[in-house]
Amino acid sequence: MAEHPVMRWWGWGVAEGAVELPRHAKDFLREKVGLLDEPAPPVALEDVRLPDPALPEGVGDRLAAICELRSDREARVVHAAGKSYPDLVRQRAGEPEAPPDAVVFPASHEDVRAVLELCAAERVAVVPFGGGTSVVGGLDALRGDHAAAIALDLGRMDALLDLDDRSRIASFGPGIRGPEADALLARHGYTLGHIPQSYEFVSLGGCVATRSAGQASTGFGRIDELTCGVRMAAPAGDIDLRPLPPSAAGPQLRQLVVGSEGTLGVLTRVDLRVRRARELRWQSFMAPSFAQGADALRAMEQSGCAPAVSRLSDRDETALSFALAGRSAQMRAFGAFLKACGVAEGSLMVVGWEGPDRETAHRRADAGRILREHGAVATGEAPAMAWVDGRFRSPYLRDTLLEHGVMAETLETATTWAGLERLYDGVRDALRSSLTAGGTPPLVMCHVSHLYPVGASLYYTFIARQDADDPIGQWRAAKTAACDAIVAAGGTLTHHHAVGRDHAPWMQAEVGAGGLALLRAAKAELDPASIMNPGKLLPTT
Amino acid sequence: MAEHPVMRWWGWGVAEGAVELPRHAKDFLREKVGLLDEPAPPVALEDVRLPDPALPEGVGDRLAAICELRSDREARVVHAAGKSYPDLVRQRAGEPEAPPDAVVFPASHEDVRAVLELCAAERVAVVPFGGGTSVVGGLDALRGDHAAAIALDLGRMDALLDLDDRSRIASFGPGIRGPEADALLARHGYTLGHIPQSYEFVSLGGCVATRSAGQASTGFGRIDELTCGVRMAAPAGDIDLRPLPPSAAGPQLRQLVVGSEGTLGVLTRVDLRVRRARELRWQSFMAPSFAQGADALRAMEQSGCAPAVSRLSDRDETALSFALAGRSAQMRAFGAFLKACGVAEGSLMVVGWEGPDRETAHRRADAGRILREHGAVATGEAPAMAWVDGRFRSPYLRDTLLEHGVMAETLETATTWAGLERLYDGVRDALRSSLTAGGTPPLVMCHVSHLYPVGASLYYTFIARQDADDPIGQWRAAKTAACDAIVAAGGTLTHHHAVGRDHAPWMQAEVGAGGLALLRAAKAELDPASIMNPGKLLPTT
Repeated sequence: MAEHPVMRWWGWGVAEGAVELPRHAKDFLREKVGLLDEPAPPVALEDVRLPDPALPEGVGDRLAAICELRSDREARVVHAAGKSYPDLVRQRAGEPEAPPDAVVFPASHEDVRAVLELCAAERVAVVPFGGGTSVVGGLDALRGDHAAAIALDLGRMDALLDLDDRSRIASFGPGIRGPEADALLARHGYTLGHIPQSYEFVSLGGCVATRSAGQASTGFGRIDELTCGVRMAAPAGDIDLRPLPPSAAGPQLRQLVVGSEGTLGVLTRVDLRVRRARELRWQSFMAPSFAQGADALRAMEQSGCAPAVSRLSDRDETALSFALAGRSAQMRAFGAFLKACGVAEGSLMVVGWEGPDRETAHRRADAGRILREHGAVATGEAPAMAWVDGRFRSPYLRDTLLEHGVMAETLETATTWAGLERLYDGVRDALRSSLTAGGTPPLVMCHVSHLYPVGASLYYTFIARQDADDPIGQWRAAKTAACDAIVAAGGTLTHHHAVGRDHAPWMQAEVGAGGLALLRAAKAELDPASIMNPGKLLPTT
Repeated sequence: MAEHPVMRWWGWGVAEGAVELPRHAKDFLREKVGLLDEPAPPVALEDVRLPDPALPEGVGDRLAAICELRSDREARVVHAAGKSYPDLVRQRAGEPEAPPDAVVFPASHEDVRAVLELCAAERVAVVPFGGGTSVVGGLDALRGDHAAAIALDLGRMDALLDLDDRSRIASFGPGIRGPEADALLARHGYTLGHIPQSYEFVSLGGCVATRSAGQASTGFGRIDELTCGVRMAAPAGDIDLRPLPPSAAGPQLRQLVVGSEGTLGVLTRVDLRVRRARELRWQSFMAPSFAQGADALRAMEQSGCAPAVSRLSDRDETALSFALAGRSAQMRAFGAFLKACGVAEGSLMVVGWEGPDRETAHRRADAGRILREHGAVATGEAPAMAWVDGRFRSPYLRDTLLEHGVMAETLETATTWAGLERLYDGVRDALRSSLTAGGTPPLVMCHVSHLYPVGASLYYTFIARQDADDPIGQWRAAKTAACDAIVAAGGTLTHHHAVGRDHAPWMQAEVGAGGLALLRAAKAELDPASIMNPGKLLPTT
């Protein structure tokens, strides 16, 4: 078992990753949204408010007889939440809403089974905990109808269980972290190629449980496409679907397990497709507008020449990233170049091609032709590399902004190409209206990050001065406005962040009453005592 | 509504498609397995044994008030079965096991809803019927625990409901046939690109319900990948999943509907990805052996240069197709060429590339290099075109063989690349042993037809003299041996034929007790009276 990096209990990542705001960025934000004069650090660990553990008499000892159990302050606080905006606000304030009563660390499928059976019998809620990176409230140790809740940390189950070289299938314990998995695979020349923004800390079981997508998923496939087998321990029994290619043997149960977010059971093995590790080659372009850039991406994807990584920032995101890059001579020259090309108010596109130029030459040529037809201008490798270099920093930046009294939040959705513009406008307008009405006018930015033949994803970032009196209420109003706008425009609630507790109230809008009934029927079958991750995925009734 | 071709009630397709056996083929078969001296035609329609209709009092009139209802002999016999081997044996003998008591022809989702609600209340089983092409007993009008059963023919629901040009999504009524859908799409320059062997008669709803794959699915994607939305009327309510790109909003319910084989409800709309219609360019190769050919396919697929159509016949299938091609001067010259190249005992590979040469040049070059490394020899376009020209004839040939007292049956499976050889041997040996033990030694042939990064499919054809005394028993022994061998070797029960009644007894081996419990829970939720397609997909308990 590896020593996994443990994220700071009040924010993202590890101390070494912390991001400072350069002066020009502070000036920019002070002018645009406002900044606290004095940074407000999180409370000390010993000042976090924790209720007394509430496990039923004797249950702690019986759990400890199965596997390692911790109920110390640090373990409970670390496992009290993920990294959603409300999570961070509460943790920083020392007011976790639902810390677990204890944390167990099973080392095997059988350990997990035993824990679940005991908890089902004793009516203790169980919250599976992988890398702890959920940004949708998927890890808050809510109790549901039960008196107590434990977190079930999968960090001990982090082995590469099998590597089928011929079939290119790697089987992992669910707790292994992204970089650890890739390091083990690299010894054999493979990689998973699954790089969500949480990559440095994410567990593979968490990726599968939340149906994640990575930055290169346009080319390499989403986690649901990479998952060819799973094993899950549920309170009522096991689901074991061995790794296989696609089959016509009935409904695909694998896709019922993928995305179940710990509400049906605990993943104890994930079988994932791996690929030869290959270099990505980067390019950037400026499209004259977000709409023209998006149309170019559509044409590329539908004609089969889209790059593995395809990102398009809207005008506001492009402008902000240029503003945060500062006013160096180089940036000024770049600005003059864009102006001369007529795309100074344009949208930045970053693309990454997998493999050597000779292999991608034909697709690059086709993509280049489409981009030119849409008025895009090639802007070299540098803007792409700036994105590559900074791509894991944003979650750290969010903590820095919070410390300065600024709310920075992200949300994402997807829809058909025909519906993209309406969805883009609808969510942006909703966020602006909601936050402006609350007296904190925001910056709202958006990018397209994943392409499919039938549609694409939209990823929003919004930044506003924090409402110090009611930060959660401020967030909830904006989130509600955005989710309502997504539903109204026919988008999906979430393209890769998952449902968690934050999106659960809109699940009926997403899948209909019939779909919800099916999900509840599956849960009732596998988790009849309803101990698995209460309050997530399904709306509370 | 189009006039759909109605297949002959006792066999495949329409009269014009009938295939005669050329003399050399008869000679070959007579020598290898034996032929009847006198062909045995099917009984006349008026001699088919039909029980009296058993609908509960008044139900026929109430159904007829909803939509067209037929209970005449022809309608009942046509809808009594699909085209599985046992279906054909029983139909030809005039002994359908389970003819429906009536056939309804709903014209809308609302019609279907009303039929299902009435049948649930009156406990009448409902068997959805699309193109009637099931080869796994998916259409036999079994009654389950009910006194009566109706077939629900979806032929009236055959409209192109919507074409979203920008998102390349076409929404169809479930009853539209493959060629009709493509003809409507062709007006806009599109095609579905989904070509199962049943293409000429298959309904798109049937494809989705049975999780089908087409001949070009290696390149164009299986039906489950093309399906981006569905609407299903179930006795307990509707499932309506609008067309969307992939999402992280929980388990993918679409994949629970796809492959549900009419056991949960009736598909009333399918939203499918379409593509620009483009030519396929054909090539053929001879690999020195099936194993080397399969390894070449693996290398091509895993390095991303596999063609859209990739088929590899084993030595016996290759030899039979050459034998059936006759002994023309051309074929003799071809044989001499293969012998000179050292691949006379080899495996024929047919590949089809999508798009113009300039687009596929790089992948063709890579594939060519891999094929040479595996000892394969290019054999030109002609053997590929021979396959293309004959690819819809085999089901007709099966009828001709049956008439001559020869059983011809197919079955298919899939597994990982690492497990392919063991599976290939296991199923072949099981079929040979079973039929030889029964006194009818078979010809057993196999091909690989669908490639995936993690594995591939195997498609078997076996031919033996029919056991005139117990043709179904003979078939069942062989089928059982094959399914047991698939399970033992870790394959999936079916790669694209679906489960139906023929594979249902092995479903627990396929998905485990937990998986079966999940499927039953979904059924109990959507079809609490258990009227939907009894005896299919789920093992009877």
